[in-house]
Amino acid sequence: MGEDFIQTVLFQLFVIIVLVEVARMICNKAKIPTVIGEILVGIIIANTLLYEFINLGSDREVFEVLKELGVVFLLFTVGLETPFSSIRKVGKTAMFVAVFGVILPFIVGYAFMILTLGPEKQLEALFVGAAMVATSVGITARVIKDMNLMQAVESRVIIGAAVIDDVLGMIVLAVVVGIASGGSLDIIQVAAVSIQAVLFVLAIIFIGSLLLPKVVKQRDEKKAKEVCTADRKRKGIGPLPLALIVCFALSSMSAFLDLAAIIGAFLAGMAFGEFKDKWPCEEKIEPIAEFLTPFFFVFVGIEVSLAAFGEFDVLIIAAIITVLAIITKFVGCGLGAKSLGGKSAAIIGVGMIPRGEVGLIVASIGLGMKDPVTGLGIIEPGLYNAIVFMSLFTTLLAPPLLTYTFRRKLGKKCELVPPDAE
Amino acid sequence: MGEDFIQTVLFQLFVIIVLVEVARMICNKAKIPTVIGEILVGIIIANTLLYEFINLGSDREVFEVLKELGVVFLLFTVGLETPFSSIRKVGKTAMFVAVFGVILPFIVGYAFMILTLGPEKQLEALFVGAAMVATSVGITARVIKDMNLMQAVESRVIIGAAVIDDVLGMIVLAVVVGIASGGSLDIIQVAAVSIQAVLFVLAIIFIGSLLLPKVVKQRDEKKAKEVCTADRKRKGIGPLPLALIVCFALSSMSAFLDLAAIIGAFLAGMAFGEFKDKWPCEEKIEPIAEFLTPFFFVFVGIEVSLAAFGEFDVLIIAAIITVLAIITKFVGCGLGAKSLGGKSAAIIGVGMIPRGEVGLIVASIGLGMKDPVTGLGIIEPGLYNAIVFMSLFTTLLAPPLLTYTFRRKLGKKCELVPPDAE
Repeated sequence: MGEDFIQTVLFQLFVIIVLVEVARMICNKAKIPTVIGEILVGIIIANTLLYEFINLGSDREVFEVLKELGVVFLLFTVGLETPFSSIRKVGKTAMFVAVFGVILPFIVGYAFMILTLGPEKQLEALFVGAAMVATSVGITARVIKDMNLMQAVESRVIIGAAVIDDVLGMIVLAVVVGIASGGSLDIIQVAAVSIQAVLFVLAIIFIGSLLLPKVVKQRDEKKAKEVCTADRKRKGIGPLPLALIVCFALSSMSAFLDLAAIIGAFLAGMAFGEFKDKWPCEEKIEPIAEFLTPFFFVFVGIEVSLAAFGEFDVLIIAAIITVLAIITKFVGCGLGAKSLGGKSAAIIGVGMIPRGEVGLIVASIGLGMKDPVTGLGIIEPGLYNAIVFMSLFTTLLAPPLLTYTFRRKLGKKCELVPPDAE
Repeated sequence: MGEDFIQTVLFQLFVIIVLVEVARMICNKAKIPTVIGEILVGIIIANTLLYEFINLGSDREVFEVLKELGVVFLLFTVGLETPFSSIRKVGKTAMFVAVFGVILPFIVGYAFMILTLGPEKQLEALFVGAAMVATSVGITARVIKDMNLMQAVESRVIIGAAVIDDVLGMIVLAVVVGIASGGSLDIIQVAAVSIQAVLFVLAIIFIGSLLLPKVVKQRDEKKAKEVCTADRKRKGIGPLPLALIVCFALSSMSAFLDLAAIIGAFLAGMAFGEFKDKWPCEEKIEPIAEFLTPFFFVFVGIEVSLAAFGEFDVLIIAAIITVLAIITKFVGCGLGAKSLGGKSAAIIGVGMIPRGEVGLIVASIGLGMKDPVTGLGIIEPGLYNAIVFMSLFTTLLAPPLLTYTFRRKLGKKCELVPPDAE
């Protein structure tokens, strides 16, 4: 309360936004994704005197909420660009790419952690596996869009697969979070949690993306005959409030069900994508996401303690996880796409490499959750650093590799335009 | 931290937004300004079991920030619609209306409080006077817009005067807050604080609304000859980040100078209004304001304790303040506009009555600030209730009175279309 507290928060917001903007400009000049810059801002704040200077320790609760709102709105907008109908269209290839690209990284990531840390670290291993699963739709789509190659067949398969893979990643995350809150690896409970997670996701997809659109359409057609449209429109709810209500309803519901809040936000966005004509909320949700999302990435960076990299283990594990993340995704997705021929499969394998936000979200949930047995965080700070490093590195790697493989196939020059440069 | 905390916040957001939407629909049906509904939602939450049910007591800090961000963005958008150039255009009449409409309510409000509470309640009396000063540009403009009378000469005077009156109200608020943080009524200090407040406001207006637009324009013209525009645009900062940076810079700066944060936000918006062509941020800032602003009004309502109205004093004071607020504004503004003739002067007097958000902001700052001598809040809860009642009642009164006076002058039917119905 009081003006002093507010004054501090406003000043912190000012400093963070200025740093983010500077980082974005540098990223644009260097032609690397701006997400990287935002995370680096967080790392810089956390590991320099800036943290004390802007007194960030004093109101972590407030920024915890801004961070969460940032990722909820991000996933809602990602869902918005992922109408369920588009998933059905992309067909078998995308499905194969997605499934192989989920199974291989998860199994290899899980197995590596069990081999390294021992079989008692089941939860930690599950989280690492989950963090290696999901390709970042956002980053992949933006890179392809920046290269003006949205129409290539490989691009369409990549986007389609990234979308399915995101849904699969959400289910994996839901199952893993469910197991972690149950605290048990009892096979019946795993099954129960998995079924609950899958049922929740499928139920929302069924109701939001299949049933409701039909019902609303029928009702609208019926109503259109009865009353004049202008009169009906007047009494209706605006697109933004409706989007906010659905988003917060599903995200708090999925949080109550011990799934991650972002799963609800993603499903809400996906359902809303079906109603784009009736409630065009995109233009209004985008600026809110644009304002809040950087707080998520900055605070992902703030959790990174550079001191932890001093430990030899962390460096080694970061390197191994990163290499495994690249190889398993490339091989898994490439195998799924081999029917398109070698060069196309290579493009698709490379295009699926960046993990970006979803991997970071998984890691940050794992850092926040307590192991019900030991009472410690499920993901240790050192391992968290390693996962953040993996996300950063795979994201950095994708744009040049995509440019290279596309150029090899198409034989013509296709330059990467810096993101945000539209 | 942790999913439990986040889950609670998401659920609270969901409940509040649903209630706000229901209230808005009811207001639209009843043809009353939706702001009223938002405040009533807060009053209902605070005075029923809902408060316990959604566990609002557990994270007041978070909502304190959402509330403040709401009002900062609201004032920024109000400033955005108030380019300094438009103030110069409206001319003498609007200036007279504004000045008389500020002096009369302030003096009468201050004098009434001193007479009622005794001369030792200087600070409280100053805040009540300040709360009675500022006409709500937002509400006035929306009512006129809803009546499709934006082009009438009276409308233009009302809008112009409301704008000047807002700036004067900001200066009065700045001076009052300055005196209150100084804790002294020493005449030299009052002068120093007033001068500092006026200088800050004038300096920002001079730099932001007069100097910068010229410099930027000259530089742009020079640059346009040197490099191609597309190339230059690519490296520039986006309109939304720039708006956010300027808004948070000026609002935290004015908070550091012991002025209210919203004064900086308003000035930032006003300066930005001059650059609408170059950095069109309105479309992006509006949705953020739309998302956050209701939290301000809901939490204005939450501070209202209905129990306090049980005291006879509060009811009497609320009634008297409200009557004084209506009469002084009507007479003051009517006098200022008497050169336009009686009927027009009546329209203008009536149009300036609604206090709305600025009065509420003043009251809520007074409630939050501590009296440096007694250590208590400057505005007591009972008096706060009285000011909120005054704001609500004057806002409710203006639409029907405006319709009536306009109809009397124009002789034709001019119906009030419900707000939000566009």
